[in-house]
Amino acid sequence: MAYRVVVIGAGFAGLTAVKDLKGAGCEITLIDQRNHHLFQPLLYQVATTLLSTSEIAWPIRAILQKRKDVTTLLARVIDIDRRTKEVILRNGMRIPYDTLIVATGARHAYFGHDEWEADAPGLKTLEDATTIRRRMLLAFERAELTPSKHERDALLTFAIIGAGPTGVELAGIIAELAHRILPGEFRHIDTRRARILLVEAGPNILPAFSKDLSDYALAALSRRGVEVRTGKPVTKITAEGIMLDDRFIPARTVIWAAGVQASRAKDWLDAEADRAGRVIVSPGLTLPDDPSIFVLGDTAHVQSDGKPVPGVAPAAKQQGSYAARLIRRRLKHGDQAETTPFRYRDMGNLATIGRNAAVIEYGRFRLKGWLAWWVWGIAHIYFLIGTRSRLFVALSWLWIFLSRQNSARLITQKETLKDPDVTPGKAVADDTGTGGG
Amino acid sequence: MAYRVVVIGAGFAGLTAVKDLKGAGCEITLIDQRNHHLFQPLLYQVATTLLSTSEIAWPIRAILQKRKDVTTLLARVIDIDRRTKEVILRNGMRIPYDTLIVATGARHAYFGHDEWEADAPGLKTLEDATTIRRRMLLAFERAELTPSKHERDALLTFAIIGAGPTGVELAGIIAELAHRILPGEFRHIDTRRARILLVEAGPNILPAFSKDLSDYALAALSRRGVEVRTGKPVTKITAEGIMLDDRFIPARTVIWAAGVQASRAKDWLDAEADRAGRVIVSPGLTLPDDPSIFVLGDTAHVQSDGKPVPGVAPAAKQQGSYAARLIRRRLKHGDQAETTPFRYRDMGNLATIGRNAAVIEYGRFRLKGWLAWWVWGIAHIYFLIGTRSRLFVALSWLWIFLSRQNSARLITQKETLKDPDVTPGKAVADDTGTGGG
Repeated sequence: MAYRVVVIGAGFAGLTAVKDLKGAGCEITLIDQRNHHLFQPLLYQVATTLLSTSEIAWPIRAILQKRKDVTTLLARVIDIDRRTKEVILRNGMRIPYDTLIVATGARHAYFGHDEWEADAPGLKTLEDATTIRRRMLLAFERAELTPSKHERDALLTFAIIGAGPTGVELAGIIAELAHRILPGEFRHIDTRRARILLVEAGPNILPAFSKDLSDYALAALSRRGVEVRTGKPVTKITAEGIMLDDRFIPARTVIWAAGVQASRAKDWLDAEADRAGRVIVSPGLTLPDDPSIFVLGDTAHVQSDGKPVPGVAPAAKQQGSYAARLIRRRLKHGDQAETTPFRYRDMGNLATIGRNAAVIEYGRFRLKGWLAWWVWGIAHIYFLIGTRSRLFVALSWLWIFLSRQNSARLITQKETLKDPDVTPGKAVADDTGTGGG
Repeated sequence: MAYRVVVIGAGFAGLTAVKDLKGAGCEITLIDQRNHHLFQPLLYQVATTLLSTSEIAWPIRAILQKRKDVTTLLARVIDIDRRTKEVILRNGMRIPYDTLIVATGARHAYFGHDEWEADAPGLKTLEDATTIRRRMLLAFERAELTPSKHERDALLTFAIIGAGPTGVELAGIIAELAHRILPGEFRHIDTRRARILLVEAGPNILPAFSKDLSDYALAALSRRGVEVRTGKPVTKITAEGIMLDDRFIPARTVIWAAGVQASRAKDWLDAEADRAGRVIVSPGLTLPDDPSIFVLGDTAHVQSDGKPVPGVAPAAKQQGSYAARLIRRRLKHGDQAETTPFRYRDMGNLATIGRNAAVIEYGRFRLKGWLAWWVWGIAHIYFLIGTRSRLFVALSWLWIFLSRQNSARLITQKETLKDPDVTPGKAVADDTGTGGG
C-alpha cells in the first residue's frame, strides 16, 4: 500500500506541501472545510470593493485536478486520534495517515474580549470580507437616510483597530472610497466628511517596518484624511462605538485587525502551545514527541535563527516546501533520514497605503511611494494562481486606476433587506424568503 | 417647487424611466431595497459558476452619479398613502410624490405550494444565485464523501422545474458542468453519471418559441445528457426529491424555474390584480382610477394589441420609456395631455442551451446552433451597463470558451461550514463566529 499523507488545511502551507509532493508516490488526502484556496493577502481588497470574491479564491479541486495522487475532501475535522493514526471528521469518517500535516491557520483574536467580535468583525474568510463590505456600504446608506446629526456622524465614523499592514491598507482604501469615489453619489451627506480612525496600541504603525517607512506611511495616511491614534489600546467596543483613552467615540463601523489566534489544532493534538494557541514544534516542524505529525503556518510556533517566524504567506509556503522535502527524504532513507532544521528566509515586508503609495523593506533595501506601489502590485499579481486570475486582477486594478471607480460595490446577504436605520450587525428574520437557506 | 417623481424599484422598468427623465426638470427619488441594479437575464450564469456577482450587478448610485436631479434611497417600502400622495418607508419616513412609478418586479411562485420554496429555490436575486450555486456544488462534494450508493445517486440527481428559457439554460449548463468540466476532479464519484432532469408540465419545452426551435432545443439538451420530461406537473417537492407522474425521484438539488408572482404592490395600492398578482393597468400604464400612479414591468398586467405583454427585460424597458415620455408630455401640456396607449414592440425570443447552441426567434426570422449562440452572446454584452462589465463578461466568456474552465466555482455563505453529509438547505448555527452578521 502506498504511503499515506493526510493534509488538513488548503492554505499556503498545506497547498504548497501537496504541490511539492508531486511525483513522490504518496497517496495524499487534502481536507479543508471550504472548497476554495484563498489568497489572503488581497482579502482586504474584497472587503473594500476593489476586487470580487472569485478573483482571489480558486476551487481546490480545480487547482489539483491533474494530481491523481491527491483526493480532496470538503469536510470538517473534529479530532485527531494519535494512537490509531487517524483524522476524525464530523460525519464520523476516520482517515488514516502515515504522515499528517496540520496547517489549519488562524482566526482573529480579541485578547479575552470575545464579546467584541459581533461589533468588530475581523478579516480571515471571504464571508468576513463580504460582511465588512456590507457594513461599510450600509453605513453610508443609513447616513443618507437618517435625519439625526448625531446618528449621521456615528455612521460616518469608521474605526480600524490595529495598524499592521491589514489595518493600514483598510484605512487607506476606506479613506479613498469616502473622500474620492463616493462624493457626488449622495444627496444628503458629504462623504468627504467621513472620519476614518486607525487605532494602534503600540507606539508606531507598521511596527514590523523600519521607523522611516512607518513615518512615511503615517504621513501618507494623514494626507488621505486618516486619523491615526497610537500608544493607547481600545478598552471597549460596542455596537455604538469604541472607548479610547477614557473617551467614547461613536462609530457604527468597527473593523478588527489587531490580533490572531491559532486554530484549535493544539486541542486535537493535545500538544503544548504558546499564548496565541500556536503549537510549539521541533526545529524539523513536527511535534517534539511525534515526527509523523507536522504542524505548519499560522498554527505553528516556529523559531528560526533564534527569532519567531512571522505569520505571513512566504513563511507558510516555505514551511510547506520544507515538510514535503522531509517526507521525500524519509520515503528514501526511512525514519532515520537526516533532518536539517527549518530556516526561514525573510522575503521582506510590503504594505500599501493607497493609490500610488506603498512601502517595501527587504533587508537593508527600502522603497516607498509610487514605485513601491507598482512593485507591490506586480509582485502580488505574480503570486496569484493561474493566468486567468492574473489577467483579471491586473485588469481590475488598471480599470480602477484609470477610471477611479471601484468595481465590486455590492451589498449582498440578508442584511440588505433590513431597514437601513436598524443597528448594524444584528441578524434579523428574513421575511422575503430569499432562497430558504 | 419642482415636480416630484418617485420611482419604486431600480429594475429595468424603473431605471429606464429615471434615465429617460433626464433633463425633464423633475425632482426624482428612486427607492430600492437593494443597492444594485441586477442584470437578471444573466443571473443563471452566476448560479452555474460562469460569471461572478459583480459582473452583472452595479451600484444604483454609481449609475446615476451624475444625475443631480435624482436622490437614491436604499430603503424598504411598506405602503403607499394614495390620499396624501406619499410613499411610506419601513423606518417611518414618508416620501411625497406628484407622480409615482411602481416597478417592484416579481418573485417566483409555487402555485399554492409555498412549502416547496425551502427545497426548491428560485432565481431572482444575487443571493438566490449564490444559494443555488452553493447547493449544486455541495451536492457533488457530499456525493464524493458518502459511502451509500443510494444517497450518492440522490445527490447526483439535479431536477429543474419549468422549461422556459431559464430552466433550459440552467439544465444545459449544469449538464456541461457535470459531464465536461468536473470529471477528473473527483476520486470516488464519476460526475458524468450525474442525472440532470428538466421537468415541464406543458407539452413542449420553450413554449414561447416555434415548434421547430423547441424541437431543436430538446435535441440539443438530449445530446448534452439532459433528461427532459414534459406533459406532467411535479406534484410534490421535499428535501428528499420530487414526485412526478406518481413516482418519487430522489433528488437532493431541486431548482424552481416554473412560475412567478408579482410583488405586493397591489396591496399597497389597493388595486385590482390578475391571478399572478399583477396590477391591471389602463392602456396608459396607470391605475385606471388614478393617472398619477404608473405600474410597470413584472408588477403590471399590460395588454398590447389584444395580447398580454410578456415579463421580459425589453418589455420592462419599453414601459419605463413610455412612462417617462408621458410624464414629460404632462409637464408640458398639463394633465389634459393626449395619451396614446402603450404598444409593445416584440424584440423576439432568445435562449441558450449550452456551448455553441442557442435559439433565436424574431418575427418570422429563426436562427439556431452556433451562430445563434454567438449572436446571443454579443447581444447580451451589448445590453450590459458600462464598458467595464462588457469587457469583463466578454473576457470571462472567452476564457471559459477557450479553457473549458468555469471561473466562479465558489461555495460561500455559512452553509460552507456545515458537515457535507447534512441535509442541504436547512440553516444551522454558525459556530465559528464568521462576522456576527
